[in-house]
Amino acid sequence: MFSTLDNLDCSHCDAQYDPRVLQGLCTACNSPLLARYDLSEVPIRRSALTDRAPDLWRYHELLPVSAPEHVVSLGEGMTPLLAVPRLGASVGLEKLWIKDEGLLPTGSFKARGAAVGVSRARELGIQAMAMPTNGNAGAAWSAYAARAGLQMLVVMPVDAPIITRVETVAAGGRLVLVDGLISDAGRLVSAAVADSDWFDVGTLKEPYRIEGKKTMAFELVEQLGWRMPDVIVYPTGGGVGLIGIVKGLMELRELGWVEGPLPRMVCVQATGCAPIVRAFDAGADESEPWPDARTVAFGITVPKPLGDCLVLSALYETEGTALAVTDAALLADVSLVGRLEGLFLCPEGAATVTATRALVESGWIAPDEEVVLLNTGSGLIYPDTVFIDAHTIAVDGKLDLPPSGG
Amino acid sequence: MFSTLDNLDCSHCDAQYDPRVLQGLCTACNSPLLARYDLSEVPIRRSALTDRAPDLWRYHELLPVSAPEHVVSLGEGMTPLLAVPRLGASVGLEKLWIKDEGLLPTGSFKARGAAVGVSRARELGIQAMAMPTNGNAGAAWSAYAARAGLQMLVVMPVDAPIITRVETVAAGGRLVLVDGLISDAGRLVSAAVADSDWFDVGTLKEPYRIEGKKTMAFELVEQLGWRMPDVIVYPTGGGVGLIGIVKGLMELRELGWVEGPLPRMVCVQATGCAPIVRAFDAGADESEPWPDARTVAFGITVPKPLGDCLVLSALYETEGTALAVTDAALLADVSLVGRLEGLFLCPEGAATVTATRALVESGWIAPDEEVVLLNTGSGLIYPDTVFIDAHTIAVDGKLDLPPSGG
Repeated sequence: MFSTLDNLDCSHCDAQYDPRVLQGLCTACNSPLLARYDLSEVPIRRSALTDRAPDLWRYHELLPVSAPEHVVSLGEGMTPLLAVPRLGASVGLEKLWIKDEGLLPTGSFKARGAAVGVSRARELGIQAMAMPTNGNAGAAWSAYAARAGLQMLVVMPVDAPIITRVETVAAGGRLVLVDGLISDAGRLVSAAVADSDWFDVGTLKEPYRIEGKKTMAFELVEQLGWRMPDVIVYPTGGGVGLIGIVKGLMELRELGWVEGPLPRMVCVQATGCAPIVRAFDAGADESEPWPDARTVAFGITVPKPLGDCLVLSALYETEGTALAVTDAALLADVSLVGRLEGLFLCPEGAATVTATRALVESGWIAPDEEVVLLNTGSGLIYPDTVFIDAHTIAVDGKLDLPPSGG
Repeated sequence: MFSTLDNLDCSHCDAQYDPRVLQGLCTACNSPLLARYDLSEVPIRRSALTDRAPDLWRYHELLPVSAPEHVVSLGEGMTPLLAVPRLGASVGLEKLWIKDEGLLPTGSFKARGAAVGVSRARELGIQAMAMPTNGNAGAAWSAYAARAGLQMLVVMPVDAPIITRVETVAAGGRLVLVDGLISDAGRLVSAAVADSDWFDVGTLKEPYRIEGKKTMAFELVEQLGWRMPDVIVYPTGGGVGLIGIVKGLMELRELGWVEGPLPRMVCVQATGCAPIVRAFDAGADESEPWPDARTVAFGITVPKPLGDCLVLSALYETEGTALAVTDAALLADVSLVGRLEGLFLCPEGAATVTATRALVESGWIAPDEEVVLLNTGSGLIYPDTVFIDAHTIAVDGKLDLPPSGG
């Protein structure tokens, strides 16, 4: 049995849906659907995973794709979980890890959702897909759509990272820009796909992207020797990764592959766009649209996430928290992490460093707690976060070395 | 025994050197040194590798680093070997693979050499390193130097990819630009490091970078089930990867982990800088400096590689070949591979596609031969290879969908 996928449940009401046919949002209440598995049918032990290839398909029984021949892959998964002791000392933690999602195909964690989402879309007969995106998801879905032989149309804000435009076009995706935010792009896509045979694969509009994202959790606990960390810090735009991580950990706990309390989940946003933080601080179940959203961490510029209720409930259930950091502080942490550990984080990833420092200072994280930060993408996609000051010498010039410090 | 490193042999004369202390070029004849292992001491079978983490350190007995605590890692290795059937059909091959080195830390295959080279440099007491680079090596060595706590100085041509400047600076490397080519940068570095305690880690100037590169061969034969392909196609600048692949395969064959003839190695260069191709066509043992070198595949703009004799001898010994492709043709293949397979190749990687098509057309590669192409870096580093033509719509505008083709 390649997949133990069993059902699709509405995340809000009691409706259930047949996973063997195409589904979007709940037709009763317009909420996202979540995949459910018959975990009693999972035929392997966790120890058997080591015989499998180091990609996210090693967890195929807990993924929705029904057969190996339907897998669309560019080699995604098993990104490194790196101990970062110098950074840990700098923020006051003894056990700090960064999971580096920048090493995925297309340079961001969006590849996980795209690999699983596109595989499943093709398996269910889809030919053409459209989505709003802040850039990275459009790049990833275009690449996997090309790999699958499907059509992809992407609408992204004019301010999205230029390199994600390049990636989209390089993979043959149709690219349209909108003079607005991802919420505007989403509205345009929703209106256009109605009464067409294009499928809207925007965040949580279909139930399988999140299934790819949850493999971040599978990998990190496998890499820790099937131990859950105390805290996971996640930069939150649409929040699918955060929801997916909690969903994945609950599945592993039900399987008996991990035990104990779930990690406290930390939602990090930018002060220029922090709808989840504001809702969390108010103890609300839902967020309000954030006006004039703007941050250099463009991937998390999501003024009103469709999955806000699910993100907030994951924070409450895991006794987590939410906080916002400034662009200036997160940019300083891009530079700090580069110098201390050689890792070129995306700004969203650097925001988790800034947030972690604040949470250690406030005492919310204790110095001996084990903390995992998610770096959701490669710094290569955001070259403007680094200031270059290099002098040029002539071919017949002379190079002066600084003191070696040796 | 973590490493079976035994000796350092000059690649040209009979001199031998002690690997327990720092070594540069052969002091007798100025040629590169090559690491030799006591393969009779390798304590494991190839089947035992599956229990090890999916990175290049799984081959540690065949690498020069003496102890695990000296390993400097950013999670490098086990890059995907992807079947590319649509591209294969397009060039006329039934069994075509791309090994995607763009998924390594810093976005290029240079991470392999840097991981092993920096680990070994630190182990031998180095504090500060300098190198000439066409960009990617400088980015990689800066990242690993930062991870190791060492100083790095990088000299790159002003025309090198801008993003490699960004990566170098992001990792705290000292960046100097030169108004010339990598050969000019190399001369400046050589002159500057003499009589200093800076160590010159330019291509083949120290013996361990190539040891990292050879893991491309280890991985690809492991991923093929310990079978060697018929042909390996490699974009060649300095040529360390090509030399390393052949060295690695010969070590595995001596160990008995693979058997049969080595793959025919194909050296691909650009028509704007093809010193190895010219020497190969003349049956020479050494190349002549290429005047006015220039190609969009900037990583292979090396007018006179230090390892040219080793590259040429690898081509002759494996009954390989060498050929040059035009910038226009390789750029068209960046686009083709993106559309057909969703992979965003670097221009150097795309050059292997162009070359392979020509070799199939000429009959040098038969349609049923198994061919592996090395994509040496991520297209993210070369955004200018893609032309963006996207229109912008207003927030209150309307999105028109093309026919879905469904």
